[in-house]
Amino acid sequence: MSKTVICPGSFDPVTLGHVDIITRASKMFDKVIVAVLVNSSKTPSFSIEERIELLQDSTCGIENVEVVSFNGLLAEYCRERKVDAIVKGLRAVTDFEYEFQMALTNKKLNPMLETIFLTADADSMYLSSSMVREVASMGGDISNFVPKCVHQRIVERLNKG
Amino acid sequence: MSKTVICPGSFDPVTLGHVDIITRASKMFDKVIVAVLVNSSKTPSFSIEERIELLQDSTCGIENVEVVSFNGLLAEYCRERKVDAIVKGLRAVTDFEYEFQMALTNKKLNPMLETIFLTADADSMYLSSSMVREVASMGGDISNFVPKCVHQRIVERLNKG
Amino acid sequence: MSKTVICPGSFDPVTLGHVDIITRASKMFDKVIVAVLVNSSKTPSFSIEERIELLQDSTCGIENVEVVSFNGLLAEYCRERKVDAIVKGLRAVTDFEYEFQMALTNKKLNPMLETIFLTADADSMYLSSSMVREVASMGGDISNFVPKCVHQRIVERLNKG
Amino acid sequence: MSKTVICPGSFDPVTLGHVDIITRASKMFDKVIVAVLVNSSKTPSFSIEERIELLQDSTCGIENVEVVSFNGLLAEYCRERKVDAIVKGLRAVTDFEYEFQMALTNKKLNPMLETIFLTADADSMYLSSSMVREVASMGGDISNFVPKCVHQRIVERLNKG
Amino acid sequence: MSKTVICPGSFDPVTLGHVDIITRASKMFDKVIVAVLVNSSKTPSFSIEERIELLQDSTCGIENVEVVSFNGLLAEYCRERKVDAIVKGLRAVTDFEYEFQMALTNKKLNPMLETIFLTADADSMYLSSSMVREVASMGGDISNFVPKCVHQRIVERLNKG
Amino acid sequence: MSKTVICPGSFDPVTLGHVDIITRASKMFDKVIVAVLVNSSKTPSFSIEERIELLQDSTCGIENVEVVSFNGLLAEYCRERKVDAIVKGLRAVTDFEYEFQMALTNKKLNPMLETIFLTADADSMYLSSSMVREVASMGGDISNFVPKCVHQRIVERLNKG
Repeated sequence: MSKTVICPGSFDPVTLGHVDIITRASKMFDKVIVAVLVNSSKTPSFSIEERIELLQDSTCGIENVEVVSFNGLLAEYCRERKVDAIVKGLRAVTDFEYEFQMALTNKKLNPMLETIFLTADADSMYLSSSMVREVASMGGDISNFVPKCVHQRIVERLNKG
Repeated sequence: MSKTVICPGSFDPVTLGHVDIITRASKMFDKVIVAVLVNSSKTPSFSIEERIELLQDSTCGIENVEVVSFNGLLAEYCRERKVDAIVKGLRAVTDFEYEFQMALTNKKLNPMLETIFLTADADSMYLSSSMVREVASMGGDISNFVPKCVHQRIVERLNKG
Repeated sequence: MSKTVICPGSFDPVTLGHVDIITRASKMFDKVIVAVLVNSSKTPSFSIEERIELLQDSTCGIENVEVVSFNGLLAEYCRERKVDAIVKGLRAVTDFEYEFQMALTNKKLNPMLETIFLTADADSMYLSSSMVREVASMGGDISNFVPKCVHQRIVERLNKG
Repeated sequence: MSKTVICPGSFDPVTLGHVDIITRASKMFDKVIVAVLVNSSKTPSFSIEERIELLQDSTCGIENVEVVSFNGLLAEYCRERKVDAIVKGLRAVTDFEYEFQMALTNKKLNPMLETIFLTADADSMYLSSSMVREVASMGGDISNFVPKCVHQRIVERLNKG
Repeated sequence: MSKTVICPGSFDPVTLGHVDIITRASKMFDKVIVAVLVNSSKTPSFSIEERIELLQDSTCGIENVEVVSFNGLLAEYCRERKVDAIVKGLRAVTDFEYEFQMALTNKKLNPMLETIFLTADADSMYLSSSMVREVASMGGDISNFVPKCVHQRIVERLNKG
Repeated sequence: MSKTVICPGSFDPVTLGHVDIITRASKMFDKVIVAVLVNSSKTPSFSIEERIELLQDSTCGIENVEVVSFNGLLAEYCRERKVDAIVKGLRAVTDFEYEFQMALTNKKLNPMLETIFLTADADSMYLSSSMVREVASMGGDISNFVPKCVHQRIVERLNKG
């Protein structure tokens, strides 16, 4: 039974919480597609190319992970790529409610598509990309929040912007 | 005891969830005013006129429903129109908290005004206007989410915009 | 459109929060049945007869209220009595979740039966029968928590027991 | 990558919600162990043997499902049986909080053990074993709540008890 | 043991809920710094100077309160000012989740910094600055929502804007 | 400004989460009373004397902590002992709702009594006395959940019982 899952998100930028979820998914399933959502309506802090590169470097030790960008409907993209399940990390109740709604919507759009939730690690429960951006933009130390190998690049990029 | 209730909202656009709540309210109360909120600060996808027309067509079989637009303070509008209660559908916990705050505020502004909650149908629990807009804008199928009689017009309108 | 609603509960004993919900329901609907649940599995502090009497005295000024006890399935009892809707007060999120489940179950058992929620008054948001019992059993003052006309009887009864 | 997961629970009795989660798990993973918890402190309505039999009959069409009972620490049992992940269905926020606590505890006791959540189907969101017992004990119709093939036996058993 | 706490916020504008929290903090701790956050990304309705003045007038009877503005990282500002704890009012569950995340982040950034929560008074549970702005902008009466001594100025300012 | 606070609870038995909250309270306030609730209705696993002794040993390095037992109404006991505030740790949303209700009740019973919440440490967010009892009773390792100095005694006691 070979199974492919997808971890979709904005990853603007990647955090240690994202890497935790991707790593755990890679141990449970045969292939993990990390999919950076191209959302034309929001102005991201990092370009699609930067976000992909940071994710690739943060997961370079994991063989069955592929980083891609995608545009359009997630349920449709999953059909094309023969994805069996969406994997999401849950940090808190408000996360849960939104993700619950998304899971039911995606199932309606693609009845074969499963959504699987992993609970965030106790250490990354408070972590979010927006908090990383906020702390870094005010000169705070984000070394506990992002992967070591991309820390320097994220700091430099957020200080420029 | 003749009772008038109001279903306020943005309805941008109407969903099957809205129609479910309006229909059920129309069975409990003598008159149901469906009130489209004119909110100058947000840019809606559908104009006020379009939203009213879609609502009228979606509720055309229900005699005691009137569709209007309104501007200003809901509590004040309810006083003018002699509305006895606001009727809202609850989908989830986050809905509940916001609506709870609104209900207490409206009671403070108009102590005679009651707020009544109906739980969303299991089938429409995940439905929201923003999800309909998002799915449609990416070419997804929204026929399970909006009333049949306005489906085509909503699709065309969201594809143009 | 003549409408009958039911306010079910244990009422062990009645609190000011219950009276608030019953009073508001009596202003919205033609008839309000207050139904004391006979639950054989729990040992109540007040007998069915005591609970009915306390409720009758607490609502004696409201003409369209009837106090009854009932046994068995609420959905079935509502069918027999031609009840149009169940009315429940919501105090908090945990309330909401349980009541949500009950509302969906009752709809499955009796598709014509509506459940309507009113938000607890800011002043009774913390009130529950169990808290009244707990405070009174330790000699605390419950005069802010229960109707004036039954206060003395509740205190005496809880001190004896 | 061959993966074994476990669906632990009381299953007192099995509901359509349980069968939905077990079925979906069986499509994602190579082997699904359905584990009936022997909890000496609670008095169940169905014996361990009855619960196992009802589960076996409800999942008899699914090849990679095994029904067992277990006693003691789940994290320890998972180590012995080489289970890769616990699979749980989430119905609501209160579920989520308790399950979240359990998932963190189990990870502390067995760091290799993953917990995976699936969202309940919209149709089974309100379903629980205790609600089935309650409705059946009052003579209500539970045919929408439990698997067809065990419906008759559950009704008879709950009427006797 | 002399303790300094900080009440950070946007205060756009001050509400009776803010004054309740500040007053209660001033009774528990030796010094209370009320810190208006200078957030360059949002466009506030009141200028920093106006917000400080309204806060000063609303708390002028409390000796151990100092009103300041601050820019940058709260955890860093607390280090500079030797603040022992952040004090926040909690109104509801969604508040709680966000504040929980903030508290854990601030502790990571400054391990000596404590976050303390007070529950909002039953009367101010529904109060927020955005609701005050919304009600006032539509000509509603906000006299129950803001301190008496600044009511007139807030109304005039929001009508002009 | 000399302030006395109280940490009430069952402490059946003390966990690392309790010690974290007590320690942090002892740094913020002049005196911390740890009060073991004598609850006649529940059958505890540890006697009052055992619970007090375990707490005393777990907090023996903190000078301004006193461990007591108390019976009756907390709000009344706080009045007698001139306690300024109740201090509680919050782990999760369900905690929050119950504690919120308790805080409002206690304020009604004793308007001078404040309730202060601290967020549980990320590491103790999943910890509860009941989970410690459950894990230990099944032979699981609880060394990560309880203070080192009382670990052996808790294990022995729970194995005997």
